[in-house]
Amino acid sequence: MPRVFSGIQPTGDPHIGNYFGAMKNYVRLGEEYGKNSIYCVVDLHAPTNPNAYDPRQLAARTLEMAVANMAAGLDPEKVIFFAQSHVPEHTELAWLFTVITPVGELERMTQYKDKAQKLESTPAGLLMYPVLQAADILLYKADTVPVGEDQVQHIELTREIARKFNHQFGEMFPEPRAVLAKDALRIPGVDGQGKMSKSKGNTIGILEPLDSIWQKLRPAPTDPARVRRTDPGDPDKCLIGDYHKLFSDLPTIETVYEGCRTAGIGCVDCKKMLMVGITRELTPIQERAAELRADPVRVRDVLAQGAKEARQIAAPVMEEAREKVGFLKL
Amino acid sequence: MPRVFSGIQPTGDPHIGNYFGAMKNYVRLGEEYGKNSIYCVVDLHAPTNPNAYDPRQLAARTLEMAVANMAAGLDPEKVIFFAQSHVPEHTELAWLFTVITPVGELERMTQYKDKAQKLESTPAGLLMYPVLQAADILLYKADTVPVGEDQVQHIELTREIARKFNHQFGEMFPEPRAVLAKDALRIPGVDGQGKMSKSKGNTIGILEPLDSIWQKLRPAPTDPARVRRTDPGDPDKCLIGDYHKLFSDLPTIETVYEGCRTAGIGCVDCKKMLMVGITRELTPIQERAAELRADPVRVRDVLAQGAKEARQIAAPVMEEAREKVGFLKL
Ligand code: SF4
Ligand code: SF4
Repeated sequence: MPRVFSGIQPTGDPHIGNYFGAMKNYVRLGEEYGKNSIYCVVDLHAPTNPNAYDPRQLAARTLEMAVANMAAGLDPEKVIFFAQSHVPEHTELAWLFTVITPVGELERMTQYKDKAQKLESTPAGLLMYPVLQAADILLYKADTVPVGEDQVQHIELTREIARKFNHQFGEMFPEPRAVLAKDALRIPGVDGQGKMSKSKGNTIGILEPLDSIWQKLRPAPTDPARVRRTDPGDPDKCLIGDYHKLFSDLPTIETVYEGCRTAGIGCVDCKKMLMVGITRELTPIQERAAELRADPVRVRDVLAQGAKEARQIAAPVMEEAREKVGFLKL
Repeated sequence: MPRVFSGIQPTGDPHIGNYFGAMKNYVRLGEEYGKNSIYCVVDLHAPTNPNAYDPRQLAARTLEMAVANMAAGLDPEKVIFFAQSHVPEHTELAWLFTVITPVGELERMTQYKDKAQKLESTPAGLLMYPVLQAADILLYKADTVPVGEDQVQHIELTREIARKFNHQFGEMFPEPRAVLAKDALRIPGVDGQGKMSKSKGNTIGILEPLDSIWQKLRPAPTDPARVRRTDPGDPDKCLIGDYHKLFSDLPTIETVYEGCRTAGIGCVDCKKMLMVGITRELTPIQERAAELRADPVRVRDVLAQGAKEARQIAAPVMEEAREKVGFLKL
């Protein structure tokens, strides 16, 4: 059976791009692979980007991402769900991987170059980021890694690290393959300026109050062909149309296509219909999140149990790696 | 009370340069500072230099360095003595330090540049070496680090890392100072071509059989002024003279100075007198080493106990660091 690993950034405030691109996928994979699907809030990675990290918020954001995923349907009884900093084997294996990873390969990573460019001084952690990521995955001998397109290069490096380790020290790690999340790539931001992303401030949060979502949707740009109410439009050229495809049921989608193309409905009506679907999808999630937030001890217990399960896999793998690299066994 | 940390390279075959420069010093500091003197065989560092690392030998060399230090008088009951790879907090803290260490600082390290030059491809571990070294020291909040001159730059970086961490996350680490080992710098190799070092192949091993030592001393160069037996010489210009100062008692040293300067003794006689001192110093060490080698379980137990003691200090420090960087506490 394949083993799935995915890292979840502790960004806080997951948005509908994360939800349709990743979180729903985790739930689905969890139902398919059970304890062979491993989800890790990658808090050790967070401090590597000084522009997006605040030590006073990291713990709260870690907890919030746990809450959000559980509220969205991830069942910690079925999968393995934990935070990276609670499993010390991640950094231990990462250290071993630094030994077989050329500095030059790391300097070539596109993400590194992009992020380093925006910083006055580049922390070594940013350069080492993909080495820790390789350790995250290979510590569980995972072979399947659902990721966004921007991570494909890192997974390719992970494969190289696995190959190199196996070659130098003896066969041990699988070469994991990246599985692209389809929807995630196509969800536009509410400003109509390309992909939804936190850094662009154009998100709709899955835990965002519904009236706040409406305040964002109401002024959102629609098909520019609809200058007047009487001009027909095309839902395929409109982000509201895109959102309908995610949130609305088939009859509503049909009404929207028909109404938009014939100028039978106005854009505000169309957005109100969208709110029905959003409300239906997000309300139960937000209710579960409220319950979980009210019981932080429970969420901590879940993560503690998850860390224990993760270590049950990680410890013997680390043991094997340590022995292969030649450390004295006591 | 100061706390001393020193890392011991698992090179195997410690030589009399290591012995007089470091090992005897550890014994002395151990008697002074007891459990506040922490000695760590730094096996995690070993694989960073592909030219000097063999996975099939690392465990044996780690054990051998433990044997050698214990044979030379290091008392594991008095000090803390362990191997780095048995305390996972080292790599965990190192990861946190990557976040505050600029890549540029690491690229400027002289040792890095020297070693990288000799390699076709530079492993990231070589670049990260001083970050792990900083973690080795600061994990114990050590303030005193006996080192060779070539390590002074790394200790300066450790101080910077401590300062930066304290500044960014709150006061926590001391700024350790390097204490230079005096003798180590001056012990010449048996070929007379500068400092004794393993890579030059000009060493006298402290665990080397005495007849093998004699085979090296007999052809060793002496004061070039003594072309003929009747030419007077100067022990201060002769490596055998230097060795006498380390191994021989005062009357012997007086005899050597007098005899050399007056051509009263020949160089072979002088070397034979040196063998008396070497035999006196090394025989008990070699006997203890033989006993320890015959009882590897005991040496492993010593290292296991040492790792336990080390973790008693390291775990709460790591806990404090984790909390300061903002990770979720369970
Ligand atoms: S009617 Fe709906 S789909 Fe058509 S342009 Fe307006 S908001 Fe977009
Ligand atoms: S007599 Fe001894 S000290 Fe003098 S040159 Fe010979 S070996 Fe050196």
